[in-house]
Amino acid sequence: MADHTLYLVPNFIGEFSKDYLPKRTIEHIYSIRHFIVERERTARAFLKAIDHPIPQNEFQFVELNKHDDYTGFKAFFDTHIHDFPIGVLSEAGLPAIADPGNEIVKYAHQKNINVTPLSGSSSIFLALMASGFNGQNFQFNGYLPIDARERMIALKEMENRSRKVTQIFMEAPYRNNQFLDFLIKNLQHTTKLCVAVDIEKKGKEIIRSKPIKNWKPNEIELHKKPSIYLISG
Amino acid sequence: MADHTLYLVPNFIGEFSKDYLPKRTIEHIYSIRHFIVERERTARAFLKAIDHPIPQNEFQFVELNKHDDYTGFKAFFDTHIHDFPIGVLSEAGLPAIADPGNEIVKYAHQKNINVTPLSGSSSIFLALMASGFNGQNFQFNGYLPIDARERMIALKEMENRSRKVTQIFMEAPYRNNQFLDFLIKNLQHTTKLCVAVDIEKKGKEIIRSKPIKNWKPNEIELHKKPSIYLISG
Repeated sequence: MADHTLYLVPNFIGEFSKDYLPKRTIEHIYSIRHFIVERERTARAFLKAIDHPIPQNEFQFVELNKHDDYTGFKAFFDTHIHDFPIGVLSEAGLPAIADPGNEIVKYAHQKNINVTPLSGSSSIFLALMASGFNGQNFQFNGYLPIDARERMIALKEMENRSRKVTQIFMEAPYRNNQFLDFLIKNLQHTTKLCVAVDIEKKGKEIIRSKPIKNWKPNEIELHKKPSIYLISG
Repeated sequence: MADHTLYLVPNFIGEFSKDYLPKRTIEHIYSIRHFIVERERTARAFLKAIDHPIPQNEFQFVELNKHDDYTGFKAFFDTHIHDFPIGVLSEAGLPAIADPGNEIVKYAHQKNINVTPLSGSSSIFLALMASGFNGQNFQFNGYLPIDARERMIALKEMENRSRKVTQIFMEAPYRNNQFLDFLIKNLQHTTKLCVAVDIEKKGKEIIRSKPIKNWKPNEIELHKKPSIYLISG
């Protein structure tokens, strides 16, 4: 009996080891040979790391592409979904969270195809747990605008909301050090900032959570390290 | 060498089986015998389900208690953290998300104790992945107010925000059927509603995502079933 399901497949966020995924998630992935991915090369590396029993030359991939507004997966989806399960695999963490994967899920719902999310790690939620901030009301904002004036406005709006609702956001990893400086300089002294760095990287994970007045510029080296930022008023 | 770490330990959300947890999470839990929990009885059942190697009579627990504003854990924490790792265990899913566990994490940061979040399942994030809604901007609101007028205001505010930011919320499970009716009657026809029911319960999981105009009252039976609601404008 064919399994006509769209599976949402978590990728690693730190260590590249299947010890970081539940057995049930791994077993489901083992049944899939058709994948919609961000990059085929990293998807193949992931499938190798979890010891997927299907030979690499039998996998079929389609890459999500922003140049066609992430619509190129539709032909692949329509061709295969009535014969095979299809997996959606992110570059890191949970697909359709902080990435464009939700377009595929939306399409599956429109076509009345069953959608099954598989459990795995998310740096956003592990950082939220570890922050000590309000976990009963929180908001994820993705990236701040790049334009300096818009960025400052967005930060101040987040700081206002953070009095009632924990605010979570990110920065491109190569700008992390400047970004931490920017936060320390522009947030109020009593606003609490949590920075969660290299989550699930063995021996490298740093989670620091304290008021702005206790943060020193450059107190942690963040250059190119995956980091999540949270504030609470 | 003693491990002076506060571990944040995920509990099951559906099936009561260790196949739903990563091996690395389970191994960390095996090293812990001191736990801060919501209810000792369910914590013991969880530790039994994952085949924890320590005998049940050697565990030590303290329960979080709203009657002392969740402060009763502090004496337990201070007594043990310099000799042993301590685990925080929720009733379901990830601790400190949609429960009061963050008070313990906050206290650990104040005392400069290392905090390590362990990966596991969260119905909130699995529902978000599976909704097909915007996963680059989202907000979790917990429960709506019980008072009818305040509830309606909160719903309309969420619906406004949902045009830009996916809104996630919950209801007490025994009121789920009335709540779904309330949503169908009071949201705009074009607002999209996702209901995710019994996530990680084998063969029982239901995830339905479509505009309000395509939802029929009572089209799914939700009474006492753990459910997550999401809207997108």
